[in-house]
Amino acid sequence: MDVSFEREPRADTANAEARVASHANPGIGQSALRIEDESLLTGTARFLDDIAVDGTLHACFVRSPHAHARILSIDATAARAMPGVAAVYAAQDLFGELTEWRMPLGFPLANLPADTTPFVLAPRETAFVGEAVAIVVASSRHVAEDAAAAVAVDYEVLPAVSDCRDALAPSAPRVRTEVASNVLQQYVLSYGDCDAAFAAAHRVLEEEFHVHRGCAHPMEGRGVLARPDPSSGELTVWSSTQMAHELHYTIALMLGHPEDLLRVVTPDVGGGFGAKFMIYPEEIAVPAAARKLGRPVKWVEDRRENFVSAIQERDQYWSMAVAVDERGRLLGLRGRMVHDHGAYTPQGTNVPYNAASSMTGPYIVPAYHLDVSVAYTNKVPVATVRGAGYPQAAFVMERLLDRISAELGIDRAECRRRNLIPAEKIPYTKPLKSRAGVPLTIDSGDFPALQARALEAIDYDGFEARRLASLDKGLHRGIGLANSVKPTGRGPFESARVRVQPSGQITVYTGALAMGQGIKTTLAQICAGHLGVAPEAVHVIAGDTAFVSYGMGGFASRQAIMAGSAVDQASARLRRRILDAAAVVLNTLPDDLTLRDGEVVPRTGTGDSVALARLAMLLKGVPGYALPVPGDPGLDEVEHFHCDAQAYAGASHACEVEVDALTGAVAIVRYVAVQDSGRIINPMLAEGQVHGGVVHGIGNALFEWMGYDDSGQPLTTTFAEYLLPTAPEVPDVEVIFQPSLTPLNPLGVKGVGECATIPVAAAVIGAVEHALADQGVRLFEFPLTPVRLLECLDMAAGQGAGQGAGADGSGAGPREASSAIEGP
Amino acid sequence: MDVSFEREPRADTANAEARVASHANPGIGQSALRIEDESLLTGTARFLDDIAVDGTLHACFVRSPHAHARILSIDATAARAMPGVAAVYAAQDLFGELTEWRMPLGFPLANLPADTTPFVLAPRETAFVGEAVAIVVASSRHVAEDAAAAVAVDYEVLPAVSDCRDALAPSAPRVRTEVASNVLQQYVLSYGDCDAAFAAAHRVLEEEFHVHRGCAHPMEGRGVLARPDPSSGELTVWSSTQMAHELHYTIALMLGHPEDLLRVVTPDVGGGFGAKFMIYPEEIAVPAAARKLGRPVKWVEDRRENFVSAIQERDQYWSMAVAVDERGRLLGLRGRMVHDHGAYTPQGTNVPYNAASSMTGPYIVPAYHLDVSVAYTNKVPVATVRGAGYPQAAFVMERLLDRISAELGIDRAECRRRNLIPAEKIPYTKPLKSRAGVPLTIDSGDFPALQARALEAIDYDGFEARRLASLDKGLHRGIGLANSVKPTGRGPFESARVRVQPSGQITVYTGALAMGQGIKTTLAQICAGHLGVAPEAVHVIAGDTAFVSYGMGGFASRQAIMAGSAVDQASARLRRRILDAAAVVLNTLPDDLTLRDGEVVPRTGTGDSVALARLAMLLKGVPGYALPVPGDPGLDEVEHFHCDAQAYAGASHACEVEVDALTGAVAIVRYVAVQDSGRIINPMLAEGQVHGGVVHGIGNALFEWMGYDDSGQPLTTTFAEYLLPTAPEVPDVEVIFQPSLTPLNPLGVKGVGECATIPVAAAVIGAVEHALADQGVRLFEFPLTPVRLLECLDMAAGQGAGQGAGADGSGAGPREASSAIEGP
Repeated sequence: MDVSFEREPRADTANAEARVASHANPGIGQSALRIEDESLLTGTARFLDDIAVDGTLHACFVRSPHAHARILSIDATAARAMPGVAAVYAAQDLFGELTEWRMPLGFPLANLPADTTPFVLAPRETAFVGEAVAIVVASSRHVAEDAAAAVAVDYEVLPAVSDCRDALAPSAPRVRTEVASNVLQQYVLSYGDCDAAFAAAHRVLEEEFHVHRGCAHPMEGRGVLARPDPSSGELTVWSSTQMAHELHYTIALMLGHPEDLLRVVTPDVGGGFGAKFMIYPEEIAVPAAARKLGRPVKWVEDRRENFVSAIQERDQYWSMAVAVDERGRLLGLRGRMVHDHGAYTPQGTNVPYNAASSMTGPYIVPAYHLDVSVAYTNKVPVATVRGAGYPQAAFVMERLLDRISAELGIDRAECRRRNLIPAEKIPYTKPLKSRAGVPLTIDSGDFPALQARALEAIDYDGFEARRLASLDKGLHRGIGLANSVKPTGRGPFESARVRVQPSGQITVYTGALAMGQGIKTTLAQICAGHLGVAPEAVHVIAGDTAFVSYGMGGFASRQAIMAGSAVDQASARLRRRILDAAAVVLNTLPDDLTLRDGEVVPRTGTGDSVALARLAMLLKGVPGYALPVPGDPGLDEVEHFHCDAQAYAGASHACEVEVDALTGAVAIVRYVAVQDSGRIINPMLAEGQVHGGVVHGIGNALFEWMGYDDSGQPLTTTFAEYLLPTAPEVPDVEVIFQPSLTPLNPLGVKGVGECATIPVAAAVIGAVEHALADQGVRLFEFPLTPVRLLECLDMAAGQGAGQGAGADGSGAGPREASSAIEGP
Repeated sequence: MDVSFEREPRADTANAEARVASHANPGIGQSALRIEDESLLTGTARFLDDIAVDGTLHACFVRSPHAHARILSIDATAARAMPGVAAVYAAQDLFGELTEWRMPLGFPLANLPADTTPFVLAPRETAFVGEAVAIVVASSRHVAEDAAAAVAVDYEVLPAVSDCRDALAPSAPRVRTEVASNVLQQYVLSYGDCDAAFAAAHRVLEEEFHVHRGCAHPMEGRGVLARPDPSSGELTVWSSTQMAHELHYTIALMLGHPEDLLRVVTPDVGGGFGAKFMIYPEEIAVPAAARKLGRPVKWVEDRRENFVSAIQERDQYWSMAVAVDERGRLLGLRGRMVHDHGAYTPQGTNVPYNAASSMTGPYIVPAYHLDVSVAYTNKVPVATVRGAGYPQAAFVMERLLDRISAELGIDRAECRRRNLIPAEKIPYTKPLKSRAGVPLTIDSGDFPALQARALEAIDYDGFEARRLASLDKGLHRGIGLANSVKPTGRGPFESARVRVQPSGQITVYTGALAMGQGIKTTLAQICAGHLGVAPEAVHVIAGDTAFVSYGMGGFASRQAIMAGSAVDQASARLRRRILDAAAVVLNTLPDDLTLRDGEVVPRTGTGDSVALARLAMLLKGVPGYALPVPGDPGLDEVEHFHCDAQAYAGASHACEVEVDALTGAVAIVRYVAVQDSGRIINPMLAEGQVHGGVVHGIGNALFEWMGYDDSGQPLTTTFAEYLLPTAPEVPDVEVIFQPSLTPLNPLGVKGVGECATIPVAAAVIGAVEHALADQGVRLFEFPLTPVRLLECLDMAAGQGAGQGAGADGSGAGPREASSAIEGP
């Protein structure tokens, strides 16, 4: 476990449930239209590349074509001589601008070696295809690209390792010459008595699983614009990031730039999905080059760069054994997980830890033992993509439950129900801790009820009729189920400041980060509810270090919880302060006043009113005049909402597929997502997030495959090769919110974004297997592309009904016939 | 009285004296070297004109040559056609950029008519010589000036009023056609039974006084640079101002510019002295022009502009009668004061109110009645210059006391002593309130002790020997005394934020404003004392709205009190927070730790230490990890120190002059300034402020005369005509701090800056009169230039020993021989 400050989570849960249940904010629960949309729809939104600064130079990176190579020399003479080229900097050229060659670890409390983080520019050796070795700055992007092509890098190609299982072999080539081993971490997570559990088991089943590598692929890739002001020393950096404040910290650290002379601004962000929850070497190299040149420099990632240098995820191999009793109840789980970590550690090793520690999901598992190996490979570094390890774990768990059901002849829903943590055991503390030492306590929820609702919504009992109808069309219909739970609202805090300006403008400032999910609308609604205005009257500034000194940003389904609660608390206090001040000015009592459309008005009957603008002017302070109310000046409240514990958001998904066994085509014909995301602030937005989450999961399940060959060369570097789901592949997702209120925050809200992705691959693959049960197909991997499905069908047919596809096709050897698989 | 929120001052004075007396901050009391000086001495300081922004255009104003005129037309055709001219805007041209034509009133709670504030540019009529009617923007200042000369303004000259006494006549020309009368305010300040006091008086003396108009004349005049960013809408405005936040407010208001898109930055400021405690029309016109043009625009005031458009002060006529008993004790004061307010009210009418309400100074006056007339004239508007009305009042009071002493044959020091508020009556509440409704309570001090110390220091008793020695040189030696008291630390609040950055940098951010007095050093000392570093390790950012949302700025001798206390409180809290966090990280107790040179170290013996930088990194927040200590993130504390009551700073000055009756030359040969400025934070800086204050007073007393002719034409618009004291005129000022601690702030500090100016003219003029007592000269005005002194000598000689100079030479008629004037 990482270094941590051993304290119990700070959330005050005493009477929290009653407090949360009675929370009154008229802004909550309304499907307000998105305040973001006007600028997006009228073309006035400003994504990174839209920001125009006079005199901007354009950057391009020279990237390694080799998965592993020693840099013998870099000759930029020809490139530097090209017209329009301002500079070509290799690592050594830029070092004068930097305090360190390597990036700092994103989670500095993680116990990791110093040689694991990436370099700003690789100085001696490259460890994956796409690693940057030089930055070219020129008058335009095309000049920069031409010049980058003219930079002559002499590489000595070194042996590379592509598969994380191979990487573990003592004889494997080392991923970088500086590391003694490819094994970054090896640890065991365990509790209970697994030996006893397995010894006493009615049945022990074993299975191999593989979840393949994929990417986050926001619509807008990464991008950085750095504007130095040589006269003042100020440096302004715009970046398409999920963590503006961390970027501020890192630039100040790496460039030795005074914090007060640095501003990081987040423009409109065209999606993050975890890939921008990261400080990248490019985000240091570009400001360093700009400061060195004294000129603005912009770099906008192209799609190929995104494929070869933005972080990736998912790649894991699991070998699991499960011990069950005769009723299908889980007695123990044990096995091994190998996690492909890529070439460096930009952030930490939370993804494998998340997967390993969450494997049991919403189920009771009395004994658990998992050997975890985190292996370096010569591939793009791995960090978090939506779900961050949870989808892998959920897939393994749910597929095991399907296997148990099949082996024991128990209905899959019933088998799950028997193992789900019952509502009366909530709060339920798993005998594990988070990487930071926080107990894994499921604070709220009713998992059996979620599943029951999903079964009802999809008409589980009526499946057979639909199966027959599909069969009439020549299609195999299957139904899949999956449950999941994820802790959301990761701490330690988020900031909000709510202010009424003397112009009357209400502004929310937050360290949270808007990257397309509608968080500005959410926060505006919460604020507006307290201050008696429409949400569109509230301006939200997110992720701009000029306005907020501390902030964590957008990740881990945290923003509605952390920033939402901060805005709620700050707005509630501001309301009281407004009423107190207005009462003095109007010579009445605060309780006789209320807020309406920017004015403080009598609650009933007639009387004087006063505009918020007037109050804000009085409260900014007038020399020699007392403020109308004691306390700090301004109509201004700041709240840093803290919570180290997390709110567990459950989901139960059910889907039906029709599979064409001739083409391998899978059509998802029904999709029901029952979500417990606590109180819903904006149903429309939350539903949109669930849609997005399910689509992300469908992409993972059926399409997204980031391939590398044995030498570490990427095979999929365009959207022609790497497939994303498009409209025809996406079903009409039925979203049902069945909330339980968490006591961990005043709103009772939980995260949404990731929670809808986690169970999807398990449900979809389960449905496909169910559809093809009579053909003996067994599926333990994703993505399951049509080609791959045909391979599995062929394999099953060739090996008789008892042979499915193992984790990677080489599988776990022959499996028994699945005679016990039954209909729902 | 102005509109106000009726509350008693908020300062908690319970046990305050003991608390203040025991206040421990090792940074206080040391004469630390100024942290400002390195950049000033090495030429890297950045005054307004030093700020270089690419593409900057330069502005110049077309100003009225007439004291009162109607604008018939403005023809800028020729000017606009000149090469390099970007724009010429008259009022109408700029109005599209503005929400209002007129400036808002600086003190919006003052009960003043709407037609009293100046215009951004005069649209129809000019009311003083120097009023701006158009702004010219060009490629350079000289092009702009040439173009300004080419703007043809057709004026219809209207009758003007130059003398405020004339202005009061019903038949006087109105200062502006829009006003119904030249009388802006007429009110009575009174308490006690004056009629009874005068009826019962042993003697009633009458006198006329005139204090002539002067200016503030900072070394650096005003200046504004506005940089719009058309792409983001951001507008950055640098201004040489004493109130950055008020400027932010006013620009946002006047330009309708979103507050969040506006930043006001104060560069190094080359002095303010009250003239920059003001938002000027130029500070609106320049950003408006810049925004309209989409280009940076800079305007730097030249000295002539400063003479004709920066605010001025002092001009007052007093007709007073004083009732005394046979022992020279004051029984009552009554009379009339006419205040020359100039053409507009930019701020409020605090200067005449200050003078009227402070006239009794540190003396007990049982009954008081003053008729106040605030009169418009066609001259530069009046607002605050160092002392803000107090020097005028002190002059009147002290000259009356000299007159009483002379008439009754009482020693001047003894006469004062008999009337000073004795220490045992402190706190002493005068039966008057401030313009904002706050009782005038002298919180602390011992005035008789201050005077005793001054007499001792100047060797009052040994004067006769020195007089004879001077006489041997043919010079008339005189000694003068004056006491004063001024409320300092004007509220309502000042802001401070103290922060340790992850780089380890300690920064103080404040809404206070550094304009040369060394306040950055003062604040750094206070912070450094708590945080265990040297003052130069503390960076201070003052008056930048990007870093501090609320601030009042620099005026009314308030900054050490208000900002100093805010920094003190914030730093003390930050120290505790640092120790608490370090104790968690080091696994020890906070009490076992202390701070030294940027590290938290064991208080005694050996043990682990931790750098502030490391703590700051941990406390900024790491995703998913608890903060080491609960509470807000960061090593960051904010304090808005409030106090509506003011700390009264006393002074007792004594000086000796040698007067050459043939030339009128006055040499100040001794000057003793005993100051009660509470606890002294940095003796060297405080002494420097007293030096400056005394020199300012000497300038007022003997040199500074801002003349206008009867038509309102200024007569002194260069430093050849308007005299400032230079080194030869300045004596070696002996500064003695004799502090009493105020209970109104935790440091026990009081203001310094103005308090040394207030009694100077009274003391110096008193000394000159004393020197020439045997020639029958009586002096009731200042400045007393050599020429004027010769006139007074001539007049006294011509009219016999009994005739002095009345207030303006026309005086109060013949006066009796001053046979009672005696030596000290």
